[in-house]
Amino acid sequence: MLKKSININGNSRTLIVDPESSLADVLRKQLLLTGTKVSCNEGHCGACSVILDGKLVRSCIVKMKKVPDGASITTIEGIGTPQNLHPIQKAMILHGAAQCGFCIPGFVISTKVLLEQNPSPTREEVRTWFHKNLNVCRCTGYKPIVDAVMDAAAVMRGEQPPVTLEFQMPKDGRIWGSGYPRPSAVAKVTGTAEYGADLGLQMPPDTLQLALVQAKISHANILSIDTSEAEKMPGVAKVVTYKDIKGKNRINGLVTFPTNKCDGWDRPILCDTKVFQYGDAIAIVCADTKEQALAAVDKVKVELEELPTYMSAPAAMADDAIEIHPGTPNVYFEQGVVKGEDTKPIMESAAHVVTGNFYTQRQPHLTIETDIGFAYFDDEERLTIHSKSIAIYLHALMIADGLGIDVSKLRMIQNTSGGTFGYKFCPTLEALVGAACMATGRPVYLEYDYQQFITYTGKRSPFFMDVKLGADKNGKLLAMETDFSVDHGAYSEFGDLLTHKGAQFIGAGYNIPNIRGIGRTVCTNHAWGAPYRGYGSPQSEFASESLMDELAEKIGMDPLELRYLNIYRPGATTPTGQVPETFALDKMIDILRPKYKAAKDKAAKKSTTEKQKGVGVSIGIYGAGGDGPDTAEAWVEVLKDGVLLSTTWGDHGQGADAGALGTAHEALRPLGIAPEKIRLMLNDTALAPDGGPAGGSRSQVVIGNAIKVCCENLLEAIRKPNGSYMTYDEIVKAGMDTRYSGSWTSTAAIGDPDTGQGIPIENYMYGVFMAEVTVDTKTGKVAVDKMTIVANVGSINNKAVVDGQIYGGIAQGIGYALSEDFEDIHNHTNMVKCGIPFAKDVPDDIEIIYYDDPRKTGPFGASGVGELPNTAPHAAIINAVYWASGARIHSLPAYPEKVLAALAGKK
Amino acid sequence: MLKKSININGNSRTLIVDPESSLADVLRKQLLLTGTKVSCNEGHCGACSVILDGKLVRSCIVKMKKVPDGASITTIEGIGTPQNLHPIQKAMILHGAAQCGFCIPGFVISTKVLLEQNPSPTREEVRTWFHKNLNVCRCTGYKPIVDAVMDAAAVMRGEQPPVTLEFQMPKDGRIWGSGYPRPSAVAKVTGTAEYGADLGLQMPPDTLQLALVQAKISHANILSIDTSEAEKMPGVAKVVTYKDIKGKNRINGLVTFPTNKCDGWDRPILCDTKVFQYGDAIAIVCADTKEQALAAVDKVKVELEELPTYMSAPAAMADDAIEIHPGTPNVYFEQGVVKGEDTKPIMESAAHVVTGNFYTQRQPHLTIETDIGFAYFDDEERLTIHSKSIAIYLHALMIADGLGIDVSKLRMIQNTSGGTFGYKFCPTLEALVGAACMATGRPVYLEYDYQQFITYTGKRSPFFMDVKLGADKNGKLLAMETDFSVDHGAYSEFGDLLTHKGAQFIGAGYNIPNIRGIGRTVCTNHAWGAPYRGYGSPQSEFASESLMDELAEKIGMDPLELRYLNIYRPGATTPTGQVPETFALDKMIDILRPKYKAAKDKAAKKSTTEKQKGVGVSIGIYGAGGDGPDTAEAWVEVLKDGVLLSTTWGDHGQGADAGALGTAHEALRPLGIAPEKIRLMLNDTALAPDGGPAGGSRSQVVIGNAIKVCCENLLEAIRKPNGSYMTYDEIVKAGMDTRYSGSWTSTAAIGDPDTGQGIPIENYMYGVFMAEVTVDTKTGKVAVDKMTIVANVGSINNKAVVDGQIYGGIAQGIGYALSEDFEDIHNHTNMVKCGIPFAKDVPDDIEIIYYDDPRKTGPFGASGVGELPNTAPHAAIINAVYWASGARIHSLPAYPEKVLAALAGKK
Repeated sequence: MLKKSININGNSRTLIVDPESSLADVLRKQLLLTGTKVSCNEGHCGACSVILDGKLVRSCIVKMKKVPDGASITTIEGIGTPQNLHPIQKAMILHGAAQCGFCIPGFVISTKVLLEQNPSPTREEVRTWFHKNLNVCRCTGYKPIVDAVMDAAAVMRGEQPPVTLEFQMPKDGRIWGSGYPRPSAVAKVTGTAEYGADLGLQMPPDTLQLALVQAKISHANILSIDTSEAEKMPGVAKVVTYKDIKGKNRINGLVTFPTNKCDGWDRPILCDTKVFQYGDAIAIVCADTKEQALAAVDKVKVELEELPTYMSAPAAMADDAIEIHPGTPNVYFEQGVVKGEDTKPIMESAAHVVTGNFYTQRQPHLTIETDIGFAYFDDEERLTIHSKSIAIYLHALMIADGLGIDVSKLRMIQNTSGGTFGYKFCPTLEALVGAACMATGRPVYLEYDYQQFITYTGKRSPFFMDVKLGADKNGKLLAMETDFSVDHGAYSEFGDLLTHKGAQFIGAGYNIPNIRGIGRTVCTNHAWGAPYRGYGSPQSEFASESLMDELAEKIGMDPLELRYLNIYRPGATTPTGQVPETFALDKMIDILRPKYKAAKDKAAKKSTTEKQKGVGVSIGIYGAGGDGPDTAEAWVEVLKDGVLLSTTWGDHGQGADAGALGTAHEALRPLGIAPEKIRLMLNDTALAPDGGPAGGSRSQVVIGNAIKVCCENLLEAIRKPNGSYMTYDEIVKAGMDTRYSGSWTSTAAIGDPDTGQGIPIENYMYGVFMAEVTVDTKTGKVAVDKMTIVANVGSINNKAVVDGQIYGGIAQGIGYALSEDFEDIHNHTNMVKCGIPFAKDVPDDIEIIYYDDPRKTGPFGASGVGELPNTAPHAAIINAVYWASGARIHSLPAYPEKVLAALAGKK
Repeated sequence: MLKKSININGNSRTLIVDPESSLADVLRKQLLLTGTKVSCNEGHCGACSVILDGKLVRSCIVKMKKVPDGASITTIEGIGTPQNLHPIQKAMILHGAAQCGFCIPGFVISTKVLLEQNPSPTREEVRTWFHKNLNVCRCTGYKPIVDAVMDAAAVMRGEQPPVTLEFQMPKDGRIWGSGYPRPSAVAKVTGTAEYGADLGLQMPPDTLQLALVQAKISHANILSIDTSEAEKMPGVAKVVTYKDIKGKNRINGLVTFPTNKCDGWDRPILCDTKVFQYGDAIAIVCADTKEQALAAVDKVKVELEELPTYMSAPAAMADDAIEIHPGTPNVYFEQGVVKGEDTKPIMESAAHVVTGNFYTQRQPHLTIETDIGFAYFDDEERLTIHSKSIAIYLHALMIADGLGIDVSKLRMIQNTSGGTFGYKFCPTLEALVGAACMATGRPVYLEYDYQQFITYTGKRSPFFMDVKLGADKNGKLLAMETDFSVDHGAYSEFGDLLTHKGAQFIGAGYNIPNIRGIGRTVCTNHAWGAPYRGYGSPQSEFASESLMDELAEKIGMDPLELRYLNIYRPGATTPTGQVPETFALDKMIDILRPKYKAAKDKAAKKSTTEKQKGVGVSIGIYGAGGDGPDTAEAWVEVLKDGVLLSTTWGDHGQGADAGALGTAHEALRPLGIAPEKIRLMLNDTALAPDGGPAGGSRSQVVIGNAIKVCCENLLEAIRKPNGSYMTYDEIVKAGMDTRYSGSWTSTAAIGDPDTGQGIPIENYMYGVFMAEVTVDTKTGKVAVDKMTIVANVGSINNKAVVDGQIYGGIAQGIGYALSEDFEDIHNHTNMVKCGIPFAKDVPDDIEIIYYDDPRKTGPFGASGVGELPNTAPHAAIINAVYWASGARIHSLPAYPEKVLAALAGKK
């Protein structure tokens, strides 16, 4: 051990530390300075940044033996406090730079050092600094952070008054449409927000630390599991296997369609007979310390019989492939598309026909925070599970039978979460901590390291797509044919629904009167498919948006104009035969057109042989809602001083708190209540009514409507004859209820599995994307120079939140287009290897143009937003690559070597 | 488990807690908010005070199930920070209210609530508030705290400028003699000082938590120890017994005199053959958690054969008493006193002879912090032991052989310590954590709860004293005879030296030409004798100061005048035949006399039959130094920006840092160095040279002189011909050493064991005490209305520190006089039962009159201070009780029932 005297945030501290321990671990685990976050633990994400003797360091890779005795360290706790914010923190709040917030303490620290070294940086210098110092953000696309740094620097230089870093309340007191800072922002920028790992460090003393025994191969029969040696290891309280699980040991995969040949009970909590994918959990070691648990993991003996491994849909569809889940065919669901006339004769006679074969990769979510959770029995003997779940009521249903507990005895709580982007629509860790808690009767805590997180959470499923479009001589679309296979990995969870999304979104945006198609859900031994922002649309729209470009070229039309010709206009229907609730794409394209022309002119002018520039467009559409009749509940209670609003509005980092607050504030405007007087109680099944899960951009619409209804019910109840409203005291005195519930259900009806036809969702989001890129023809590297989106998300609740969603979604689209994948389970094991975009991989120039188009079915006109920016930005980029260089990429991501190959193929 | 959302210091926190856990434990152990201190853990000391929803609560007795969901809690961390102090904290610093500082966060919190409820309290209201809210301080006598509250309140009301709470640097830049705030004060008042338990919560993750298997009887043979079942308990890494100890398993009790029949090796680290006293450690359970260790303690089977128990010196001296340590007589040391002529004939012919039989009790130290420490192997493979040791080099020698480790491989470090008052002159826990660390190879942590702390640490030894004084008809003392037995408890550690102190201090202050006496050190089965402030003098001087009063009464003289007649004047010698280094008592009494007369007049006037008032005086003397040639070493090093001073100056809470700083600053005045540029590196044997232990008020004199010498050596070396001094750069450029050592040794010679004669110490402290009391004749309760001391401590280094020592020592004297004891091992198990003085048990009116009398042998004229206020305040109080009521108390403490009995006996 080393004894050191270290000054931390101005206080002299005595540290007794293992010389090999990391500074990050010492700060977090020994000193409980949990504002410093740890993610990759390999020094490439910057979440753990601290200042060591004036230098910016990533504390996860600084060993204590390298920290000089007498050193001075500044952590986020030393920058500012909630009561005394630093200008950098204020600016981050104002610009909505803290979405999930997990990276933000690192960015604040990094900015502090930057501005000490360079008080007047340019935007490009800021971006270069973050890029060089490996500060990674997955939510914001970096732009709001850079905005914040520039503002903070100006204030710190004295060039801008400090008040410019404060949100200015609109004069009418209305925050709807403003950039009112999200309530959680202060905690996030000060490092005081409590994420799962932070709570894990402050658990009761008898908490057991869990470590998983996981499969290191992808497909096998389990012959035996021997835990006897491991159970004798120091500190081990129990090794939990499937035998300890009281229930059916399966997670309910929630089959949507009765035609699904899988019953949804295919996913074990702990593997019993088989291993279905790499990383599958076989046993859970429960010990006093994590180190003890890990040491015992190696002592659990698992005898496996390896089986043939099918790592893609085509492999699993091969004739000789065995059934991965015995009794269930590997192709376990088929989604037909039947709209209009038979397409075969139409295609034969069409003036223009194009076909394309497309592949979209297995995109990893790459949240900065890994998966983390814990469980305990609460004071009402409920098994209480804290996790990053953004679907707490749903997850209770999905895991209760598997665990063998009545759902009424299951309490689910979402912790502050460092990003999910959809992967937390799937419960895994929830069931594991639940099982360990039930088996031991003690509080248990589990956190995945980054490798575990990547290899043992769901991914965006690859689509293998063959699409054919037929058009008349003018370019008017006549018909579409589709054939697509979804590699849904080892487990069926929501797999039929995802396949159904292919029917909804291949060709979305265009009036295609006649469609025939078939999609299939395929079980493989790769990572199971989990929801991911845009769910189904980035895959689907990549195919149709690429093919629209190819059609335009074939016809000799401008790609934007071909789109303009075919977009939804009155009389048109969607691929599922639905009449769009709004027809605005023509006006949106009208807005983009002059910019598009200017961009094309600029690209033409600036292009060189080596650096070829081009412009691409795409249309992106996604539904804001769950498929079919989607319901949410909420209630609002009058307090002595304000109101309490409760529902479940899961937070990925997108801003659930801001969403709920803004909606309630707008609904309660007649009361003239200040926003800070609206308290939120969200995301605890024991306290909050069921608002439904946070996915598919449904929350603002469906939960938002429920909030509106409950607030209206309140106003109705307490309105006096003179139009004024009763006070809390008057309500109590009158013996009236102080709490008023509301619920709202969409009137949609899910599409048909055979034809795809239906009205799955009432309220859609629409975007027109434009990408400007530079293709380096020597290296094949693509740089995105600018992204533009004309976005139609209905009325905007919180502009800072909506801006942030769009910036961040576009950044993820860039990663999806160019760099991200989870294919090689042995190599794609961290953010860098998985291709996460760093600061300079995302352009500073992202232009959002909102098309104001209030929706009838949205509360106060709102649609959703989160999925929209992920629908088709990659298609615009890939189209731009083509128009720049002639390289047409059909298979994502467009790695430089693929671009080079396409360039070579062109010659 | 309960899940609660609690606002702590303005931040919303999610707590998952055991409903039965205390708020204090949750704050400290789960949230690492270690500013909140825990001592008694029973709600009667206030160290753990926090604000819960605006109310002051003692968090150790607030169960989490009683903390409402949504509650707001303010801890010391939420009051102010080192960078942003609250006025209450500033005032506490200014007034030296933080001595050991362990209680201070609780006082700050308590004051915060008081001033919210009553912004303009009177001093009495402040004292009542602390009394009622059970805020206990053991160091300050409460007065500096009340001073601080009054000042803070005035500033907070705006009646006094904030600057009045800041130390004002003297214009000449000289801090010697000023109240320069001790360097550790800021950390103490903000709760950021790191005490042992705080460091314990931030130990490396593989640290083992220790729990002791202790004897529950006081004397027994050990037949067997069976650890097998305990070693199988969850989380247990090892159960350490004497068999695991590599060395001789004995603590070296450091025999002073060769005539001692005990060799000093009587105290086992872990009991092997016998149990000698209640609480003796038999085994150490080492486990992952404290709870696991405690659970396993109950599984260790110890078979004992109970032996006769001797709980007092007379019992152990009985003829039929067996030898507690076989082979060593229970009376193992005798100290003779032979001064002048044979006293027998003198007594026979003396005009006045008085005799008295006196008993002083076993005073518990009652520090607010219990005993706490930990051990690990450092990076140079040294067994590193952190504890409250105020004698780190000495303790290394005392435990090395017992542990079986070369002393060069033993590193001792003192943690910031929440009070010792001498008990940490004895190593116990040090050896235990050392043994556990050596046996397991892992870091280990041990903390005693308050019951363990009281029952298993040393105490001030009881003295049984028969004293006879003979005087001529004018009251001039002719002779003294003494016979005293020291109940030194189970272990011999320093026992002969303590008995020697009886020879030094019975009759101290007076010129007694002829003395015969005998003192004996007696082994019993009660708590072993440990050094305690005033070491030997409070016992000795209680006897002679009581008897002087009885003599005065017999002669019909005023007690003060009888003293005045007999005090040291030129020509006089001490009881050990030493010529005092200064003769100032006459002038000190001259100063007191008018106050004494006024007090007597006032008492006479205000006395009623029921509330009888009286005034008592006493003279207190103690040596400032270790007996015999006492040495200290120090070094000072020139840094680029200031100097670094290093030595060991153990801190009981008395202000070692202020002492070292003030001395060095004074010595380095020619350099014109600012105090904050003098860095201190104290109390780590791997880093600091041996300044010797912090006991017997030696530090300011002996270590102070070493500091002076090293600083002078530095000045000498770097003085330029023109009288100016070389800079750091010049020193380095010249290739000169930057570090200069110094040492200093007193020229004393320890007294003789047969005659007691010698010059044990060169530099004494002198005090004249006056007590004004009220005796309630109905209840027997004594109230101390005022204490006055004329103190001669040489020149004063730091006045805030010296004031604080005197206030605190007097408060301990009040407890010693009236309420404190550790006799009933089953009942005297907490502060309240042991009789600790609460705020209103100590008078607000404590007057200190310094008699300025610079010592030749003191650095810059200083003597010591810490022991002085404990020498004889209790004697003044007991004398005052007599003069008030006629009740003469010979046996301490003067419990109300004893006073009533004495009053009854008088009738």
